[in-house]
Amino acid sequence: MQTIVPTKNENLDRLLAESRALIEVELNSLLPSTATAPEKIHQAIRWSVFAGGKRFRPTLLLATGHAFGAANQVLIRTACAFEMVHTYSLIHDDLPSMDDDDLRRGRPTCHVRFDEATAILAGDALQTLAFRTIAEDAGLSPEIRIALIAELSWAAGTPEGMVAGQALDMEAETRQVNRAQLEEIHRLKTGALIVAAARCGAIIGGASESELGAITRYGSHLGLLFQITDDFLDVTATAEALGKTPGKDARSNKATYPALHGMEDTRAAAITAHRDACEALDQIDRPTDALRHIADFILHRTG
Amino acid sequence: MQTIVPTKNENLDRLLAESRALIEVELNSLLPSTATAPEKIHQAIRWSVFAGGKRFRPTLLLATGHAFGAANQVLIRTACAFEMVHTYSLIHDDLPSMDDDDLRRGRPTCHVRFDEATAILAGDALQTLAFRTIAEDAGLSPEIRIALIAELSWAAGTPEGMVAGQALDMEAETRQVNRAQLEEIHRLKTGALIVAAARCGAIIGGASESELGAITRYGSHLGLLFQITDDFLDVTATAEALGKTPGKDARSNKATYPALHGMEDTRAAAITAHRDACEALDQIDRPTDALRHIADFILHRTG
Repeated sequence: MQTIVPTKNENLDRLLAESRALIEVELNSLLPSTATAPEKIHQAIRWSVFAGGKRFRPTLLLATGHAFGAANQVLIRTACAFEMVHTYSLIHDDLPSMDDDDLRRGRPTCHVRFDEATAILAGDALQTLAFRTIAEDAGLSPEIRIALIAELSWAAGTPEGMVAGQALDMEAETRQVNRAQLEEIHRLKTGALIVAAARCGAIIGGASESELGAITRYGSHLGLLFQITDDFLDVTATAEALGKTPGKDARSNKATYPALHGMEDTRAAAITAHRDACEALDQIDRPTDALRHIADFILHRTG
Repeated sequence: MQTIVPTKNENLDRLLAESRALIEVELNSLLPSTATAPEKIHQAIRWSVFAGGKRFRPTLLLATGHAFGAANQVLIRTACAFEMVHTYSLIHDDLPSMDDDDLRRGRPTCHVRFDEATAILAGDALQTLAFRTIAEDAGLSPEIRIALIAELSWAAGTPEGMVAGQALDMEAETRQVNRAQLEEIHRLKTGALIVAAARCGAIIGGASESELGAITRYGSHLGLLFQITDDFLDVTATAEALGKTPGKDARSNKATYPALHGMEDTRAAAITAHRDACEALDQIDRPTDALRHIADFILHRTG
């Protein structure tokens, strides 16, 4: 298995495993039961949410919150809301009229396992539930909840968020894009939600304006790093490690880093993004080890 | 043109026209510009939002708010949020894998005018924008905004809202449903958002618990009335008046009132629902004329 920069960090592995367990327990309690009608939609929601994802966005939110002294108890629901929005976007992106993916994390995608209509509705319902989950978080003040919902909604929508990025990405399949355009697509499609997850952790933790600024820069570089490594893995990883068909981006004429810049420049861009993310953390006088570990993890990930 | 109970009310016509004008000005200012990238998504959003809808849900919200003394200024953004959620649901329901409708309000549906991927993303973005619109309403306290977002999210999602209703409705195409099941589908698919629109107007207006209870009952009966007249019009109206292909429900084996109970019982059920809605208003010592007019309007509507 080729990775951008191979390494191993046992503390980080434990951190990720613990966060993931916590997040999955909470997701399980927040999602509608498959015993409740309409059962098929609820099965489809759980099929996609419990598909073995890394829980990267909620883990990032927890770790950022911890850096500012917040407890899991006041972070966990918002963390889960980000995973719900992320999962809804995967379900919709996989649809035949979008990226047309049959396999995700080694399993049939939602519309393949169920049907297209069910997948559309499951995604719709997950987005709705994300906002409800924050709105009903009794552990946070109404002021904070409103701020979090505003953050999430800007990051998920258009023109400054995920939906805008997906739209630009689909347009890019039919024409050449340059490096600046590619970074803009990534910033919106993947980066916005990652930045918002980090910012929401900091907001719940009561970060100052300047701290929030540093976390925003950290999140931006981390989001870029995430997308660069994603593109890199699409070229190098095996289907087994990736859980989806590798090389698909290149075949569908998607704009990617390796396609535009070659493998060596892609590797260098990843190392730069990682360094920039860590430098942003240098400006905060808080315990940011876990946030650095997360940047390491993204740089070194294999799937 | 055959209607359930024909009539004419000029005061009501003026009320609806005024509300509609106000709502459309605000929607125009809230929706992303078609001059901003990604342009196609923003064009698709505006294509569907400005397709000549009656603005029934936002008008109901304004009228309920007025009954409790609230000004347009504190009602209008939440009213628009309801129209955004309603429009998103129409865009997604019209998709080929859902109801597969080519025509809506006399114009090509979003996926026909643009493409399926754009329609899915436009719907997704409208839902996101609905929640952002309320979250950023500086005219309302954070407590009220949170309460409104919770209302809207329950009404739009599953298992107690619109997505659940749409899922049950699609299941019903493949099997027989009885009257109770049909009413449950309607309650969720159409009723929940109508009830929530009325409730949100009352919440912004500071309604008491018992007043909110009466408004909830009013909204429930109004929602049922709305769906009964919808089914009725599908059988009787011309394509021109309806702006879509009439008789489509019957052909696609959809559960409808006329199919289950015949035209005369359908007419009687509408009159009962209208009476029940008005009786709920009798329990409130507030100026509810406009809310009665709205019930009249639904009973008498021709399209």
